[in-house]
Amino acid sequence: MQVYLIRHGIAAERRTYADDEQRPLIDKGRDKTTKVANRMLANGLKFDLILSSPLVRAYQTAEILQQVGLAKTIKTFEPLKPGGEIEPWLQWLQTCQLKNPQGKLALVGHQPDLSNWAEILLGGSVKNQMVLKKAGVIGIEIPQIGIPIARSTLFLLTSPKWLIT
Amino acid sequence: MQVYLIRHGIAAERRTYADDEQRPLIDKGRDKTTKVANRMLANGLKFDLILSSPLVRAYQTAEILQQVGLAKTIKTFEPLKPGGEIEPWLQWLQTCQLKNPQGKLALVGHQPDLSNWAEILLGGSVKNQMVLKKAGVIGIEIPQIGIPIARSTLFLLTSPKWLIT
Repeated sequence: MQVYLIRHGIAAERRTYADDEQRPLIDKGRDKTTKVANRMLANGLKFDLILSSPLVRAYQTAEILQQVGLAKTIKTFEPLKPGGEIEPWLQWLQTCQLKNPQGKLALVGHQPDLSNWAEILLGGSVKNQMVLKKAGVIGIEIPQIGIPIARSTLFLLTSPKWLIT
Repeated sequence: MQVYLIRHGIAAERRTYADDEQRPLIDKGRDKTTKVANRMLANGLKFDLILSSPLVRAYQTAEILQQVGLAKTIKTFEPLKPGGEIEPWLQWLQTCQLKNPQGKLALVGHQPDLSNWAEILLGGSVKNQMVLKKAGVIGIEIPQIGIPIARSTLFLLTSPKWLIT
């Protein structure tokens, strides 16, 4: 099973909204994210499902992925909020994997959480050694059976500049 | 300092040459590698130096990088041969870093050695958890001072399909 961890696009500056969760993507962020999404589609990628942080900037990113045709369905997933732990997702995954062991899943969220999760899947602990830019993508293959922690493999890590021409 | 670890392009099949070190790139390998190199150039990348495995398929890959204008100089580096250890390169690096702490370096070589070296730079040990396809690229930022082992960061890992349109 392949998991693509996708960071939200460029959003309005911090402190420009009373509620940080409401900060939306700015035009530049929408534009870059759309180009990244179209590039993924052009490369034949499709997701069985997008799980998104409920925060506006993340959910808008997920909607762009959906709108270009990368996935039919978005589900908000609370543990993808900033500071969320990976454990609830691992529990969710056990059910998901049983249904579709060959599936492709997108997780849309925030930093440093996404690279933290990736590092846990790869090595079992957070090391702060992966750089994930806004609208950047991490691709991880998780094993079909058993706990994926420290047993997954990394096949993609890129900033949007390598996906946009 | 940024280090780009680049795997050689698609070469003639194993056992088609009496001496494995002489296997050249095939046309498809040259074509893909040229596209990857042109994409890197289009993104503004330039290398201060390419260190290459002396094996034909690697050196031909390095020559393609050079020919598109990514670097002026290629040096063959014996430890980049299959099975080579990272230590001699770390020693070489100490001198190189003193000269150009902000530099960009390309290493052209083989698998699993390149991802092994990358894993050592990131986490201190080989874990076989990074997938590096032929003509694929790993990008690692190493600290300006001190030993880079377990202290570097990963900013790029991609197969050629994300670099070729």
